[in-house]
Amino acid sequence: MSTHSTSPSGKMWGGRFADTTAASVEEFSASIHYDSRLYHHDIMGSKAHARMLARQGLISDEERDAILQGLSEIEGEIDRGEFVFKPELEDVHMNIESALTARIGPAGAKLHTARSRNDQVNLDFRLYLRDEVDVLDELLCETQKAFARQARKYLGAVMPGYTHLQRAQPVLLSHHLLAYVEMFQRDRQRLADCRVRINIMPLGAAAMAGTGLPIDRQSVAEELGFSAITANSMDTTGDRDFALEVLFCLNLIQLHLSRLSEELVLWSSKEFDFIRIGDRYCTGSSIMPQKKNPDIPELIRGKTGRVTGALVALLMTVKGLPLTYNRDLQEDKEQVFDALDTVKSSLAITTELLENTQFNVQRLQEATVGGFMTATDLADYLVRRNMPFRQAHGVVGRIVALCQERGCELTELPLAELQEFSGLIEPDVFDILSVDGSVHSRQSDGGTSRVRVEEALHSVENALGITP
Amino acid sequence: MSTHSTSPSGKMWGGRFADTTAASVEEFSASIHYDSRLYHHDIMGSKAHARMLARQGLISDEERDAILQGLSEIEGEIDRGEFVFKPELEDVHMNIESALTARIGPAGAKLHTARSRNDQVNLDFRLYLRDEVDVLDELLCETQKAFARQARKYLGAVMPGYTHLQRAQPVLLSHHLLAYVEMFQRDRQRLADCRVRINIMPLGAAAMAGTGLPIDRQSVAEELGFSAITANSMDTTGDRDFALEVLFCLNLIQLHLSRLSEELVLWSSKEFDFIRIGDRYCTGSSIMPQKKNPDIPELIRGKTGRVTGALVALLMTVKGLPLTYNRDLQEDKEQVFDALDTVKSSLAITTELLENTQFNVQRLQEATVGGFMTATDLADYLVRRNMPFRQAHGVVGRIVALCQERGCELTELPLAELQEFSGLIEPDVFDILSVDGSVHSRQSDGGTSRVRVEEALHSVENALGITP
Amino acid sequence: MSTHSTSPSGKMWGGRFADTTAASVEEFSASIHYDSRLYHHDIMGSKAHARMLARQGLISDEERDAILQGLSEIEGEIDRGEFVFKPELEDVHMNIESALTARIGPAGAKLHTARSRNDQVNLDFRLYLRDEVDVLDELLCETQKAFARQARKYLGAVMPGYTHLQRAQPVLLSHHLLAYVEMFQRDRQRLADCRVRINIMPLGAAAMAGTGLPIDRQSVAEELGFSAITANSMDTTGDRDFALEVLFCLNLIQLHLSRLSEELVLWSSKEFDFIRIGDRYCTGSSIMPQKKNPDIPELIRGKTGRVTGALVALLMTVKGLPLTYNRDLQEDKEQVFDALDTVKSSLAITTELLENTQFNVQRLQEATVGGFMTATDLADYLVRRNMPFRQAHGVVGRIVALCQERGCELTELPLAELQEFSGLIEPDVFDILSVDGSVHSRQSDGGTSRVRVEEALHSVENALGITP
Amino acid sequence: MSTHSTSPSGKMWGGRFADTTAASVEEFSASIHYDSRLYHHDIMGSKAHARMLARQGLISDEERDAILQGLSEIEGEIDRGEFVFKPELEDVHMNIESALTARIGPAGAKLHTARSRNDQVNLDFRLYLRDEVDVLDELLCETQKAFARQARKYLGAVMPGYTHLQRAQPVLLSHHLLAYVEMFQRDRQRLADCRVRINIMPLGAAAMAGTGLPIDRQSVAEELGFSAITANSMDTTGDRDFALEVLFCLNLIQLHLSRLSEELVLWSSKEFDFIRIGDRYCTGSSIMPQKKNPDIPELIRGKTGRVTGALVALLMTVKGLPLTYNRDLQEDKEQVFDALDTVKSSLAITTELLENTQFNVQRLQEATVGGFMTATDLADYLVRRNMPFRQAHGVVGRIVALCQERGCELTELPLAELQEFSGLIEPDVFDILSVDGSVHSRQSDGGTSRVRVEEALHSVENALGITP
Repeated sequence: MSTHSTSPSGKMWGGRFADTTAASVEEFSASIHYDSRLYHHDIMGSKAHARMLARQGLISDEERDAILQGLSEIEGEIDRGEFVFKPELEDVHMNIESALTARIGPAGAKLHTARSRNDQVNLDFRLYLRDEVDVLDELLCETQKAFARQARKYLGAVMPGYTHLQRAQPVLLSHHLLAYVEMFQRDRQRLADCRVRINIMPLGAAAMAGTGLPIDRQSVAEELGFSAITANSMDTTGDRDFALEVLFCLNLIQLHLSRLSEELVLWSSKEFDFIRIGDRYCTGSSIMPQKKNPDIPELIRGKTGRVTGALVALLMTVKGLPLTYNRDLQEDKEQVFDALDTVKSSLAITTELLENTQFNVQRLQEATVGGFMTATDLADYLVRRNMPFRQAHGVVGRIVALCQERGCELTELPLAELQEFSGLIEPDVFDILSVDGSVHSRQSDGGTSRVRVEEALHSVENALGITP
Repeated sequence: MSTHSTSPSGKMWGGRFADTTAASVEEFSASIHYDSRLYHHDIMGSKAHARMLARQGLISDEERDAILQGLSEIEGEIDRGEFVFKPELEDVHMNIESALTARIGPAGAKLHTARSRNDQVNLDFRLYLRDEVDVLDELLCETQKAFARQARKYLGAVMPGYTHLQRAQPVLLSHHLLAYVEMFQRDRQRLADCRVRINIMPLGAAAMAGTGLPIDRQSVAEELGFSAITANSMDTTGDRDFALEVLFCLNLIQLHLSRLSEELVLWSSKEFDFIRIGDRYCTGSSIMPQKKNPDIPELIRGKTGRVTGALVALLMTVKGLPLTYNRDLQEDKEQVFDALDTVKSSLAITTELLENTQFNVQRLQEATVGGFMTATDLADYLVRRNMPFRQAHGVVGRIVALCQERGCELTELPLAELQEFSGLIEPDVFDILSVDGSVHSRQSDGGTSRVRVEEALHSVENALGITP
Repeated sequence: MSTHSTSPSGKMWGGRFADTTAASVEEFSASIHYDSRLYHHDIMGSKAHARMLARQGLISDEERDAILQGLSEIEGEIDRGEFVFKPELEDVHMNIESALTARIGPAGAKLHTARSRNDQVNLDFRLYLRDEVDVLDELLCETQKAFARQARKYLGAVMPGYTHLQRAQPVLLSHHLLAYVEMFQRDRQRLADCRVRINIMPLGAAAMAGTGLPIDRQSVAEELGFSAITANSMDTTGDRDFALEVLFCLNLIQLHLSRLSEELVLWSSKEFDFIRIGDRYCTGSSIMPQKKNPDIPELIRGKTGRVTGALVALLMTVKGLPLTYNRDLQEDKEQVFDALDTVKSSLAITTELLENTQFNVQRLQEATVGGFMTATDLADYLVRRNMPFRQAHGVVGRIVALCQERGCELTELPLAELQEFSGLIEPDVFDILSVDGSVHSRQSDGGTSRVRVEEALHSVENALGITP
Repeated sequence: MSTHSTSPSGKMWGGRFADTTAASVEEFSASIHYDSRLYHHDIMGSKAHARMLARQGLISDEERDAILQGLSEIEGEIDRGEFVFKPELEDVHMNIESALTARIGPAGAKLHTARSRNDQVNLDFRLYLRDEVDVLDELLCETQKAFARQARKYLGAVMPGYTHLQRAQPVLLSHHLLAYVEMFQRDRQRLADCRVRINIMPLGAAAMAGTGLPIDRQSVAEELGFSAITANSMDTTGDRDFALEVLFCLNLIQLHLSRLSEELVLWSSKEFDFIRIGDRYCTGSSIMPQKKNPDIPELIRGKTGRVTGALVALLMTVKGLPLTYNRDLQEDKEQVFDALDTVKSSLAITTELLENTQFNVQRLQEATVGGFMTATDLADYLVRRNMPFRQAHGVVGRIVALCQERGCELTELPLAELQEFSGLIEPDVFDILSVDGSVHSRQSDGGTSRVRVEEALHSVENALGITP
């Protein structure tokens, strides 16, 4: 008697079904074309499950060994691309279990003892995402290093700092670059927190009520490196919070990349001309022979929509589902896989791109001249001489208005004229109106003065384990 | 001298590039793995373009013929799965142009005269979507037919109509089913409106400024069945409104399907027990031998998130892009393709599923008994006897409260007791308290009385060209 | 005996309820703080309903007149801000009906005959949105006029056209401006199509099954200017497609504004310096005295998220609802109202802002020099001399590479050197390498040549009814 | 000389502006109608800032005292509703600073020394959200308690557990209720993690470059209870990660509530009839006198869209913004405020609602009979007798099919017939086919057996500090 497919439906769950599944249904509901990606973690989980079953006397040691051996062989076949996944077997779990039973006989048919696909897929997904979070952390770390290296390389170079895309105050290029290191650091922290919630072991929830067979969930958790087991079987099988949280973390990473990309696009425009991206990281036009386009940052920026779309998709899918498993939840994986692929490749190519980008230091410097970028320094000068800040702000505003009328810079107004605006102004005012003077002065913690930026860079390099 | 790839970059646009494109960039930016889907429409557009070039004397008739012949051969190869798309050639346009030139020599290198990929891809996408809209209309029509057939089959069967998922008033099952026909009819109208905006010919916008070569856009439009040409070259190359509008139309279709799916899931629950979905359209459980799950409607409902995610993705991608083409826009196609595939397959399987669903007429009938579903009829009875409606509503509310206290139905209260609530109540009240009386009475246009529903069904059948 | 509030719950629907509604429930579920906005359309609908009831003999002419008079008085009070909306009466419908009955007695209690709030709110919302669509069309038209006026004013000015934010080909500023007129024209067409679907009369669907009272829906539709009545009562009460479609139309408008806003922000940066926005349309910084920020376009761009958020919200709300009315649908109005307010104010202020923006024609002109923006013209020159385009593209690419190496422009290479790249190049080549020559040449339909742009502008002005 | 408004623009930043701000711009850009909500935290931050300025010698002790006194008075006025916020003063910061200077003279004009609205609003928002996170934690805790109390009250009651909305296996009602406690526990953990990232002090970033004045950020952080200061001034002023993270946490809470709401709606349907929600927590129909609708859970479910819309809005707003502050970011607060209000009120009313909901224990019990819900137990029975699970699954599936054909339950098949399917079946099989036997057996950790559920409940009660 066959131990697995015993029904007219041809399905492993088909005992009660009088008819085969419609081909259209098989096609519509199959997930094997994307969930085969979980095979490694599915097998890892099944092995731990089998070992536990044997420890608990639910299968014999011989059966366990046959299962472990069979699963290893199947994993090898998949690794080598020799395994043929069958859509009619629906998903990665059924494909592997079916192949196992075909290979080792009745012992294979015992593997699914005391578990359901509902808890199995939850396990696989958590194992998979735990690894992916670690990969993301690594990629984020590499991106941070690329920023730190550029910050080190260009230490001392000044550029305009912007608010509202208007030149605001001169800053160090390295200070600007280190701002991104901070963003990615928050991303890493968020992922670390998320990982804690991923790393809870769901197997044993079975269909949704737990099982009556004498399993030992804790030992499976320990073997697989989980820090705890889930507390409620009904919650467990319907829970996709961890997947949503990963999607959110991915969104913030891609959002940060979108801001960087916008800047890279701006900076490589003729008007800004702040950077030159290496030829190997640009592409041309099918019609305009002269074009060299910053396609990579444009694509990364464009892909931000996709990552948000994935989050929206899963939030909307889960909305209003009654408890435990509903088939709607099958939609979780494609969204997460696509977002992971997008963010991982965006991070990797950003790192490469940054390393192949040269900053035009002279142009950056030139851009800090003009535009009254040291007007705040003048106001602060007056404040130091005890003029209320709000009044100083007004005085400097009027001086700027005069300069605009004259078409001149702050440094070009004679002292006497400056003094007409305020008697507090003395000859030393010209020290603080220079770009270097301005940058140097901003020594508040987290500020752009060289001393602060050097400290920050040193601290970042230490944390990343790189030596300048 | 080679006529196509002449640069260190190995790219057809690479004349000015000193270096090859990085492999990571090729991989990150390639679109050929999904835009190859456009090959048929790309070739259709290129053929029309070539004919126009010849008419305008920009290429010779011999060159035109060589191009047409070459493109037909390439199309045949792709049809038969013999064509090898090369990722390093980036996209479907460059793959085909490159193969053409390899095949027919210099004439091939003339095909891209007076066009850019920017207008070419816009053309391809419009041609493709025009066809897809027609396919969607066909699928919607088939789904409507399935509803109409069931409405015909079950004409006369009563069921509870719900508001707030509370039994509200008895209705005809056919009336309920025809509500969906209305929704899909709106979807078809929206698609028809959208098609008008798709069906504008963009070719000739070139990179974004138009071309100095003496092309004839109007004739290309006519040959390809477009109703007009786009009016502004800069608008044209950056326009994805039509793609967004298709995505929106798809969203409403899937939203309608999600409502149906929710109902199918509810109705196949043990508690409702209104329908039996054929075994071939359900699946079982890996652990629970008795389960028969309504997976298909669950999946359709779940996929609604995905279709909305695609719309969000593209809206977000386009947000804040300066004019004409930015590479971000490459992200448009995958979202649209995925949403199209999802909605088309959801529609097709819904039609099949519906045809394989049996309504439990007896159970539906039983569910209309009890629950005071004819209370509104009693209020209307009092209104006909000139009691103000709001007062009648209050009177009936109190009668219902009494019934609840007693645990009886409206029809079970003796006349005398009813009359204590209002002297307007006479023995004929019991006629209107019956389910059939209630349903029969609702003869307002669009109402659920049999006469109205028969009219509506007849009209729908006529419009769909089906005979009962 | 009171004709309206007769139950312990104190609610007009409260007959069957034994207890008052919890205060927290009243607060949580009230909609009066936002749906009071519908009062004008609610009263308009109620008047038409009352007239029909009288025509059908369901109320007397005297009752009708009392109702009409009472409603007019209430409307006047609301107009003048004298009406007090009561949260415990839940919504605009109950507030007005309650006030009417308090004012005119039993006749007021007859107004709700043969209708439900389910069809009433659908009616109000459609009447309201029909007007709003007309307002939007007017606002879009005004915005188009502002663009047309600027296009007329600056006719002849050249500027760089961009792809990928890289200078691509010189264009006329007016051509760029007219691209936006096209986008807004599509928005107007979409709204017109949407209006057709809004303009269907829902009243008479009653709770969801139609009514047994002898109403005449068609006459109500005619009186209120609807083109048809809805066909299925169950579909009607649960239908929010028209609201979603309005939200989508609003999204595309705001998306177009976001692209314009991005350009205005870029153009007012020191680096581009293409425009000067009037002081009255900018704001300053609380700390930096010299700042003048393009806040308005930034805010418009930022608000794009909000409009998309509203669409997502309603799509998600409707997802998976079973048929007819569910209270979830109450969430429709705030999203639509907020999106309408956002888009209307964004359009209005864009029009003003544009009229208060000056283009820096000289700077635009200067920006077209350099950057090899006529390289495509050179390729087309070779094409005219029968060099295959793809080969011409390669030749020009290599010429550009040489210029870059030399740090010179195309026009600065001696003829002899140019001829080394191709013998087809002759002295007349320098004609087509000029900016004016390039722009002038692009005479394809929809192209940027002055003759095409003048035609387009003339056509736009005609359509908008403005005279230059 | 006036110390604050000194320019034609009438704005505190208006020194350089030659003209007043357009009224339309004031209206379009004002935020005071919603950011006044931050007044308490704005004043708290300003006081700490003033104390630091005095410690650093930037203002005198007398000035500090005047500022502190003035701010306290203003706060009192706002608390009491006596303060008039002026739209032309744009936002809460300028309104308060302006009122302060009007009240105390030049000292007030010194308050903005060494800060910008860019870091000030970041500070206010963090202080505000830190408190809101604490409120949310409290609300979540209360909701958990309500669940725990119901779980205690109904301990022992059985009900059907569902997967795919099909009856799957019998469970304890308390087990089902405790599943929600787990979800809310994750929400609390996520909020706690998020709070760590909120609780970093941004003040001192100034406009975006830091300040040249000798401030002491660390001491401000300590006074305000922050755990650290932000590390990079450019990152600081453009960072809204913490707001997005709050929005995400809110989304998961509302998502959990949406699942509960769906269940409450289902359970109060006539078909399920599992619960009775108290009259005070339901509302009626304007037309149907008998209706009692579960409006509250419907509204909560419906509002899920709104909370997701808010997240999408802000993600989209931030996408593609270049570094530091852009005015787009002003859009952050309305989204966060609305989502906070929605989730807080949803949580509060859920708690109330749950406490006013009675479970129909008899009906729940009845619903566990029939539907072959102990089929898995039968399969496990065979597994214990060493039949491979997959084979047991098939055997039981065929037994179920037979029962369906017969229209009988598993327990109604004679032993002899059962034994025809497998000789392993013995008389004791009937013990495990009972509902109680099934529930009792599921003693795996996290399972639904009474012993496990009691443990879980005890642990939850301990953690929540409630005694049964």
